[in-house]
Amino acid sequence: MRHPLPPVVLVLAGHDPTGGAGLVADSEAIAACGGWAVTIPTALTVQNCHNVIRIWPADPAVMRQTAEALGDMQIAAIKLGLLANEATLRAAEQIIRRFPGVPVVADPVLKAGGGAELSTPELQKLYSDRLLPLVDILTPNRFELAALTPEITDPYDDTARAVALLSQGCQGVLVTATDDPLPPGNVQQVVHTLHSPDTTRQWQWPRLPDVFHGSGCTLASALAARLAVGERLPTACEQAQHYTWESLSHGYQPPSGQCLPNRLPRPVRF
Amino acid sequence: MRHPLPPVVLVLAGHDPTGGAGLVADSEAIAACGGWAVTIPTALTVQNCHNVIRIWPADPAVMRQTAEALGDMQIAAIKLGLLANEATLRAAEQIIRRFPGVPVVADPVLKAGGGAELSTPELQKLYSDRLLPLVDILTPNRFELAALTPEITDPYDDTARAVALLSQGCQGVLVTATDDPLPPGNVQQVVHTLHSPDTTRQWQWPRLPDVFHGSGCTLASALAARLAVGERLPTACEQAQHYTWESLSHGYQPPSGQCLPNRLPRPVRF
Repeated sequence: MRHPLPPVVLVLAGHDPTGGAGLVADSEAIAACGGWAVTIPTALTVQNCHNVIRIWPADPAVMRQTAEALGDMQIAAIKLGLLANEATLRAAEQIIRRFPGVPVVADPVLKAGGGAELSTPELQKLYSDRLLPLVDILTPNRFELAALTPEITDPYDDTARAVALLSQGCQGVLVTATDDPLPPGNVQQVVHTLHSPDTTRQWQWPRLPDVFHGSGCTLASALAARLAVGERLPTACEQAQHYTWESLSHGYQPPSGQCLPNRLPRPVRF
Repeated sequence: MRHPLPPVVLVLAGHDPTGGAGLVADSEAIAACGGWAVTIPTALTVQNCHNVIRIWPADPAVMRQTAEALGDMQIAAIKLGLLANEATLRAAEQIIRRFPGVPVVADPVLKAGGGAELSTPELQKLYSDRLLPLVDILTPNRFELAALTPEITDPYDDTARAVALLSQGCQGVLVTATDDPLPPGNVQQVVHTLHSPDTTRQWQWPRLPDVFHGSGCTLASALAARLAVGERLPTACEQAQHYTWESLSHGYQPPSGQCLPNRLPRPVRF
């Protein structure tokens, strides 16, 4: 007698060879948070724990065929990661539209942890125009939040920026403020803020001393999994942050570069 | 204070969108067995739990660049999966040669669980000529064992076949006999056999009632992880089989098609 498959999260994301980020990381986080990931690569990347060296966007026709082949998997949530060119962004839009009513978590990956630019202003505009209206919850860091709302000039008015994104059709915005503290000068705590039409909610987490590779992927995927299993948005946001903080605080130090999250209870005992 | 990264297993394998097999499955099994996977895609595939629909072999230049970017990761074992054309097979050979002395586990993926041919006689010949001399332990099922030793005609003389592979430079052969029982007519037990120059060892496992998607990937990756953490070959073979059997016996039934292994203790409790 087999168990039924856990709620399935469809992941559209890049592949990161290090396993720190990208679709492998997403799959781990989703499994740990009670889901099963099916993954459509949006790009292959050459990278290590220092930076992204090169990106090859996927063939949009392959992305669409893959989604079609997975047709009977009863998708319960969608997680959107790296979209590195217009063709893959439009393919992602088409795929999302195949699953009306399914919650969409989007991590707007615009820049690598090591600093490499993964997007352009044109692509960010297309992201806002084509994808935001389909997104239930966007998970930008403060850099990404600012890049998606260039018309707002006050560097600390996150609320105005979030309202601008909500007005574009997005249902919620969870802003992470790890790299660029809010309020300015706050070095002890990391404050994450959920903006939605009917509520604003904040969580504080003890700041960890390291820089991580894949924390954003982990958060967004955990959130998608918790929505897939049926949690409501604020609870899912809290659970995903808790899970991510635990993964980071038990993280690994590779020989050089950014630390890697420890997303799984490991190893199995032998 | 961070933990050091677990022993790193370099995976060269295809991407399977279902997560049942391929590099996502490999990463899960490696994590659960005490390692950390870094992955180089050898192919993208369109597939579901019924069969492989289409394969796009990777660009060998991308494979090589990815291996180079991962250069400082201190690779402790290598796991080789799908190699769907000559160019990716030769790139895999070049990559393996960058890491002399590192144990290599090769799962000779020639056919999909659903029956799709993933290889050709020419490619199997190249596999024997170029890769076998670099392989520490090959993990064929009985179909793959026969395909790699076409000169031997007795369908049940696995020992002769294994000896033929060992004479080509491979250090060990772990033959799995799930789909094609050995001895013929054995339907209660699954017998797996390790052939190496100095020993032959067999393990019996209660036969499970289902057909699985990704059992071969799980076994080979678990074995690579256990070698990476320092286990000796017979012990690593036993641990990998035990882990794989547990993953299958707790497996999941998707809406249709083959069952999916449950490779991780999941979910985290919230």
